[in-house]
Amino acid sequence: MNLAIIGKRGHIGYVLDGLERLPDIQVVGLSAGAPGDDISDLTGWCAVHGQSPAVHDDYRDMLDAVRPDMVAVDGPYDLHAEMCIEAFQRGLHVFSEKPVATTYDQLADLRAAYAETDVHFASMVGLRYDPAFYTAWQCVREGGIGRVRLIDTRKSYKLGQRPEHYTKRETYGGTIPWVGSHAIDWMHWFSGKRFVSVCAAQSTACNAGHGDLEATAMCQFTIEEDIFATLSIDYLRPATAPTHGDDRIRVVGADGVIEVRNGEVFLVQEGAEGERKPEPRCDRQIFCDFVSQVTGKAESLVGAEETFVVTEACLKARESADIGKVVTFAS
Amino acid sequence: MNLAIIGKRGHIGYVLDGLERLPDIQVVGLSAGAPGDDISDLTGWCAVHGQSPAVHDDYRDMLDAVRPDMVAVDGPYDLHAEMCIEAFQRGLHVFSEKPVATTYDQLADLRAAYAETDVHFASMVGLRYDPAFYTAWQCVREGGIGRVRLIDTRKSYKLGQRPEHYTKRETYGGTIPWVGSHAIDWMHWFSGKRFVSVCAAQSTACNAGHGDLEATAMCQFTIEEDIFATLSIDYLRPATAPTHGDDRIRVVGADGVIEVRNGEVFLVQEGAEGERKPEPRCDRQIFCDFVSQVTGKAESLVGAEETFVVTEACLKARESADIGKVVTFAS
Repeated sequence: MNLAIIGKRGHIGYVLDGLERLPDIQVVGLSAGAPGDDISDLTGWCAVHGQSPAVHDDYRDMLDAVRPDMVAVDGPYDLHAEMCIEAFQRGLHVFSEKPVATTYDQLADLRAAYAETDVHFASMVGLRYDPAFYTAWQCVREGGIGRVRLIDTRKSYKLGQRPEHYTKRETYGGTIPWVGSHAIDWMHWFSGKRFVSVCAAQSTACNAGHGDLEATAMCQFTIEEDIFATLSIDYLRPATAPTHGDDRIRVVGADGVIEVRNGEVFLVQEGAEGERKPEPRCDRQIFCDFVSQVTGKAESLVGAEETFVVTEACLKARESADIGKVVTFAS
Repeated sequence: MNLAIIGKRGHIGYVLDGLERLPDIQVVGLSAGAPGDDISDLTGWCAVHGQSPAVHDDYRDMLDAVRPDMVAVDGPYDLHAEMCIEAFQRGLHVFSEKPVATTYDQLADLRAAYAETDVHFASMVGLRYDPAFYTAWQCVREGGIGRVRLIDTRKSYKLGQRPEHYTKRETYGGTIPWVGSHAIDWMHWFSGKRFVSVCAAQSTACNAGHGDLEATAMCQFTIEEDIFATLSIDYLRPATAPTHGDDRIRVVGADGVIEVRNGEVFLVQEGAEGERKPEPRCDRQIFCDFVSQVTGKAESLVGAEETFVVTEACLKARESADIGKVVTFAS
């Protein structure tokens, strides 16, 4: 199998980690995807790992020249959709950074282009593979807390000094789609149900000179069967805090409550005394999982339809925050 | 000072605990406040503690007969407002279970009646005096996390088998006002700012036969200066969980984050390495605090105006959940 890589603005590390476990995959092409983006660490990685991809300034030229089987898309956030579409039109499997679209129009075009293909499409929702989150999800899926009723999520990051493209809505997309997408993905993944409505708010206050970047946001979703889901987002985690991020989820079921906190899992169940701590464990790697599905060996944790659903939910949440009203989903 | 007590449906224990530290206060009158409510444990407590109140079926008769200086109101939830108003009209200081009103009309009447008095009025927001919450609040008030930007709160309770009055909206008021009021009070207390709007949802699913009682709810408030506040409420904590409740708050400031969890306080601050755990401490007791203000010795942590503000916020949140729309506050 041959792989091409476009850009490295986000979580391309998932791909590199996976490639180290998949020595049969050839990296045949490389493009920065944006003029001016420095990809010397990608070319350096390739040199060290015995890969010798053709490097092109224009990613379309690269795709046409090297004709890969699959593409990893990690260019500018506002170009994810366009890059995925170009790949679909060439019949390529696509592993893309999320959100896969930053506008409704992009998302509609992406869905339409995907509908014409039979390739595998997944986004870089790497936290599904985090041992604690994966373990909690397995517990919920196996009925460990009964019927899901309430999902509380949190994303808290250190801000630091971010590149220019974070400071403009047009190139950044917004904090709800960029940071919140992980948690909105958890809501869909843990509940397995359809979104019904969302109400959200966002603020650029205290963003340390980062222009349009929202330093705080909150979203609350209603999901089918009156499942509720809350999301708190901030970039205000102190620089001196022990970890970059403080990602959490708590899922309340009719028969138990499970929580992920500081990389650990906490479980209380009806009928079981006290609180238990299941050992966090995940033996899957996101890019290996993607390749397994492409090669027909196993089903990956994430597919095209839920990628579209979660992207739409991110955009609707951002719209709700922009207009200050509840936004509903088509039933 | 003389005290009369009406009812014992809620947190009258705060008053009894306080009385044990205030031997000079005479309990002069007692009324169940509702026909059929058994107050034998209140009369029993009085007997053991050398108090011999007059007991009346009708609380108004009792107030007229014993002419107390202050009244503790803990009758049926839907009668809190009426009982407070009767006390105001007699010029009495009032310490009432929250929420002090379960409808907008009750709240308007209560405000109007209070405006005609110069008594002290406070509600039983006992969690302000919880050592962990009080310690976190002091830290925030002293600027320990800088400008407040985001407040995440949680109330999670065991349901068990609740009395009949919990099963009807008319007598219960709803889970947002009854359970959520604590957390909505924290939002106001920690931010010190005005509520701007609220969006909420609630569900009776999985309420184990408790009629109108909402087993889950969520609220999100915007507060002045784009401060955001989230609230997750559930009655689904397993019967076998280590504690009855799982009350939490997390306050994100421009310069730090403080969290209360399992009775402990966790603090990360800009410039201070790692996470610290300030020792939870509170040397105040809520009813003693109330009496201190009545007697002019000290200012209590909670007063009339914020009691009204928080009650209105509870009712607006419930309204938002009832109608499925954002509800705004008068500016």
